[in-house]
Amino acid sequence: MESWSGLSSGGITAVPGFKVAGVHCGIRKNREKRDLALIVADKMCNAAAVYTTNKVKGAPLILTMEHLKDGKARAILCNSGNANTAAPNGLSAAMEMTKFVADELKIKPDDIIVNSTGVIGVKLPVDAIITAVPKLVKSLSRDNIPAAEAIMTTDTFPKSWAAQVEIGGKTVTIGGIAKGSGMIHPNMATMLSFLATDCDISSEMLQKALQASTRITYNQVSVDGDTSTNDMCAILASGTAKNPIIDSEGEDYQKFLTVLNFINLKLAKDIARDGEGATKLLTCRVSGAGTQDDAAQLAKAVISSSLVKSAMFGADANWGRELCAMGYSGANFDPSRVDIGFSSSMGDIQVCKQSTGLDFDEETAKAVLSEKEIIIEVGLYDGKHSAEAYGCDLTYDYVRINGDYRT
Amino acid sequence: MESWSGLSSGGITAVPGFKVAGVHCGIRKNREKRDLALIVADKMCNAAAVYTTNKVKGAPLILTMEHLKDGKARAILCNSGNANTAAPNGLSAAMEMTKFVADELKIKPDDIIVNSTGVIGVKLPVDAIITAVPKLVKSLSRDNIPAAEAIMTTDTFPKSWAAQVEIGGKTVTIGGIAKGSGMIHPNMATMLSFLATDCDISSEMLQKALQASTRITYNQVSVDGDTSTNDMCAILASGTAKNPIIDSEGEDYQKFLTVLNFINLKLAKDIARDGEGATKLLTCRVSGAGTQDDAAQLAKAVISSSLVKSAMFGADANWGRELCAMGYSGANFDPSRVDIGFSSSMGDIQVCKQSTGLDFDEETAKAVLSEKEIIIEVGLYDGKHSAEAYGCDLTYDYVRINGDYRT
Repeated sequence: MESWSGLSSGGITAVPGFKVAGVHCGIRKNREKRDLALIVADKMCNAAAVYTTNKVKGAPLILTMEHLKDGKARAILCNSGNANTAAPNGLSAAMEMTKFVADELKIKPDDIIVNSTGVIGVKLPVDAIITAVPKLVKSLSRDNIPAAEAIMTTDTFPKSWAAQVEIGGKTVTIGGIAKGSGMIHPNMATMLSFLATDCDISSEMLQKALQASTRITYNQVSVDGDTSTNDMCAILASGTAKNPIIDSEGEDYQKFLTVLNFINLKLAKDIARDGEGATKLLTCRVSGAGTQDDAAQLAKAVISSSLVKSAMFGADANWGRELCAMGYSGANFDPSRVDIGFSSSMGDIQVCKQSTGLDFDEETAKAVLSEKEIIIEVGLYDGKHSAEAYGCDLTYDYVRINGDYRT
Repeated sequence: MESWSGLSSGGITAVPGFKVAGVHCGIRKNREKRDLALIVADKMCNAAAVYTTNKVKGAPLILTMEHLKDGKARAILCNSGNANTAAPNGLSAAMEMTKFVADELKIKPDDIIVNSTGVIGVKLPVDAIITAVPKLVKSLSRDNIPAAEAIMTTDTFPKSWAAQVEIGGKTVTIGGIAKGSGMIHPNMATMLSFLATDCDISSEMLQKALQASTRITYNQVSVDGDTSTNDMCAILASGTAKNPIIDSEGEDYQKFLTVLNFINLKLAKDIARDGEGATKLLTCRVSGAGTQDDAAQLAKAVISSSLVKSAMFGADANWGRELCAMGYSGANFDPSRVDIGFSSSMGDIQVCKQSTGLDFDEETAKAVLSEKEIIIEVGLYDGKHSAEAYGCDLTYDYVRINGDYRT
């Protein structure tokens, strides 16, 4: 495989031919906070998306599924501060906001991907959005940050990544922005992640790559075990890189998928790191599993456990909680042969060998677990498969933030 | 059905022919805390038990399964402060403590049900237990509290209930003690609950009744989504009430089951109310579901959601979180027709009708949700089945308790 490079900034606008905007339209009370984002491609794109598996789906997701039936789109529109889910006239509100943006952009409404994020069950103030549309479109630019900020809810920093790879002698760029924070336990889809690329790739292969990539990135993240009603990961591919079109699973597809995975993993880890109230990024790495699914399921159960998350907040090497979480995960493994260790920039320490506790130095364990990024290493003897999952610690601030989210 | 009565105290010793003891043997550092419990019947009992479905099972559970193969037992032995799970020589430690108690009681080791609860992965100080056995057996009495206290971990109060019913002209008593607090999300079994009855009932019907009862009581409780490695609910039936033996599913069986359900539900709710850090008991009551399983699954998903639990702590009527949890529960229901309301001793308030938010008075909602016992009422239009689940709020104290459990 040829070399490729990650770009730590840029996001959507690292990709040629894409403009973005983010403004405050008034859904959020704080005038300092942007709450309406727009991403627009210069030309029609092949498009793909994956959605929440929650049976309760936000109205904008239902509209977007309709719009993406032809595999084409030119723009992504998203507000924060209100999920437009289980709200009066949700579907008409989503259609109305989309129509006004389409008119202003002089494109068709069904070429727009639309979503909303925020509180569930409150009527979307669609007039505020409509009033802001001219300002929104006018402020479209090659500056990525306003859009990355406008989709944030309780996120503490905007999340954007980009990377480049050479495909068929042409430089192809993929960039994306995402938001996470709470109600984060994606299942077959993701929180909000919007991606753009100039790669020439068919809608079908784009959808295939997106599904493969979300499975090992966003779907392996959990902040609080709650799968949102509005999860969505969408990608637009403009084709302007002029690489030979990717329309089958050859070497070029693999290259594209590798870079897509890189971006999605960066965004997914940023979401875990910035979980509501989080002070630590937790990665659980399971190796030696009998199957890929078992490895993924075990890793996700460990980083989803409230007891593991609380112990990590307290820098307490109480590894029995990892073993317990694996035991109820539903995955297959030999419970009598489990190794467990912790590592961070301060070093690493093994605490359990073949399911039996080791005598370990509590001071060292405390030092390892006091860092901001902790890796929980789980070794099995069942096979050769490995997987990672990403989460965060459970802190007083998670409770504070969610004890009174609406005020 | 004839009348029956609940006894608010008594527990195991409300049942004639049973003695209990609880002492401090030294597993727990605090000398004020009892850590070794014993329940003994005057004569051999029919016995039944259900266990955790966690793939990682505590050594004492594995031993108990062996001991109960003949459906008979005379005593229950349990320590707190150490789970004897994933610990060096776990099975021999469990066998050793059982043997010493059997010798002292002059019964066979395999007539003892044994369990341990506490930290995972640390060697059980079996010498401390053995040394305490004579004192333990000597202190057997008709006072229920020492045993109820000795099985507590982070529980803040002992949990015991008893009730009586007339079967075949004879008064039959059932009593029990339980512990809960953390790592509470039972699946087909329970946390620790030990029950006794003087009812004459076959081992087979006793097992059947216990399984039916735990399904709708303990299995509908969640404190933190973590299914323990040592969950167990066991019952001893001495037969001394001299009722006509219950050996089939007739009217007497139903009477027995009704009272068993009463006790188990009381203990289950006490466990939810006393969840780690909890300030409120949450009950989610789902009605109008298409099947019994759907109703149970929906109710349990709602009371298990970290976001619902945090909102209840903050007395915030953010009902979209209930709807969201139902959506990812995996249960079947019509997501477009969901009614949601809250009630407590301060009154009740409906906040969502047919999946659409209602205008409601925030002051009233705050008042309703500020009470210590909250009922979340979910109404569906899918059928006639209903179920309840029991949980607690998520508080700063849950994080504090679990951030440094081992010290």
